[in-house]
Amino acid sequence: MTLELYHAEPRANSLKPVAALLEKGLTYTSHYVDLLNFEQHEPWFVKINPNGQVPVLVHDGAVITESSVINEYLDDVFPEKPLRPADPAERARMRVFVKFTDEYAFPAFSIHGWHRMVRRVAKAVPPDRFEKLLERIPLKEQRDKWATVAGDSFSQDQLDEATRKIGVFCERLETALTEHEWTAGSTYSLSDICAFCLAPSAKMFWPQFCNPEKTPRTIAWIERIEARPAIKAAMSGPDRTAATLAKLAEA
Amino acid sequence: MTLELYHAEPRANSLKPVAALLEKGLTYTSHYVDLLNFEQHEPWFVKINPNGQVPVLVHDGAVITESSVINEYLDDVFPEKPLRPADPAERARMRVFVKFTDEYAFPAFSIHGWHRMVRRVAKAVPPDRFEKLLERIPLKEQRDKWATVAGDSFSQDQLDEATRKIGVFCERLETALTEHEWTAGSTYSLSDICAFCLAPSAKMFWPQFCNPEKTPRTIAWIERIEARPAIKAAMSGPDRTAATLAKLAEA
Repeated sequence: MTLELYHAEPRANSLKPVAALLEKGLTYTSHYVDLLNFEQHEPWFVKINPNGQVPVLVHDGAVITESSVINEYLDDVFPEKPLRPADPAERARMRVFVKFTDEYAFPAFSIHGWHRMVRRVAKAVPPDRFEKLLERIPLKEQRDKWATVAGDSFSQDQLDEATRKIGVFCERLETALTEHEWTAGSTYSLSDICAFCLAPSAKMFWPQFCNPEKTPRTIAWIERIEARPAIKAAMSGPDRTAATLAKLAEA
Repeated sequence: MTLELYHAEPRANSLKPVAALLEKGLTYTSHYVDLLNFEQHEPWFVKINPNGQVPVLVHDGAVITESSVINEYLDDVFPEKPLRPADPAERARMRVFVKFTDEYAFPAFSIHGWHRMVRRVAKAVPPDRFEKLLERIPLKEQRDKWATVAGDSFSQDQLDEATRKIGVFCERLETALTEHEWTAGSTYSLSDICAFCLAPSAKMFWPQFCNPEKTPRTIAWIERIEARPAIKAAMSGPDRTAATLAKLAEA
């Protein structure tokens, strides 16, 4: 059996499968893809995922894309230590929360992440090289995002709307954790992993929405998840993005 | 056992669970929710689904929302006549196609549907009544959409971008059906149901993208699905939306 994961830093979307693999105690080969050096758009990687996006799981030759689909796949194939609730109604609640987090919250956090961080990378690349890099990005939506941050970036209206959505995410997370111990019910599941990929950023960058007074259950839930051995292991590696950004800051 | 479905016309999102329920031969109580008369925002309905959206499944008291989550739920609870591929990699492919259809194609078709049809409804309501109807819409995103079509509607740029995405959807559907008989592999599955909720509209309104020359496999696949007894039964009811729209046209 071969199990390989192509991933960036274990943050945001790349953390999802790493957290699930480690929680299940699975051994896998890790392939780090350097997003800030545009490796995800290199021909060798686009051969694996034509969309040029991480993470990607390759299991005995089967290529599985989309972080939340990868995690359902892992639970289908390795059902020991399940990460989906046994009760079908809780399982549906898990899927609704994953869907909300992926479709509503992730794009909102992403706008701020690109504006704050990816913009510095785009601006550091000489324009003629940047044009060539843009051309090989498979998805129009991704090309547009790179072009946006290389130019005037997002408007204040777009940033404000993203901030508002982050507030809605924090409220809805706190409500879920008021109704049950974990986001989908009584057990740690894929929707906790998914929401945890964003919640610590909310706590750090948007304390007006996520703090011990306003969202006490979310703060306690973040601490419970950070204490899990699988999450500790996932987050213990070197932060290679930080190194790249530090180099850019010097230049 | 009680199984109830709150739904609009069996088109777009409401067709998904109707198609799955009938395919599985399940008996359920149908509750028609008249979207063009704003029933989905009435207090009795918002008590069932706080988001004020159809479809909603109520199974022995458990409330399940989000059409694609409802369909996974139905397959979890009623596994006979499965609508998810048995092979985990095909199942992942099914989930990726559902995700793409829901997140990328549905919003694009929706913009045109609102511009062409819902706009006439919004304009037919007297402004003071419309203001009151707007106020009780739970989701900001839905409120904004109603306000948009009641005002200047979507810009030509937004409509063009939606049209472009419909073209991408048609291409990707044809590619999937070139690689295998059904969208996810060798069996009819939830991703076929999901894509079929849009494909006949593409054929009717965007023949430049979906026609016998350009997308022969899609055309044949639409015909195969239309011939299924479950789909025939789903689509055989009266078109109540058409009646409402005809009344508006007379007024």
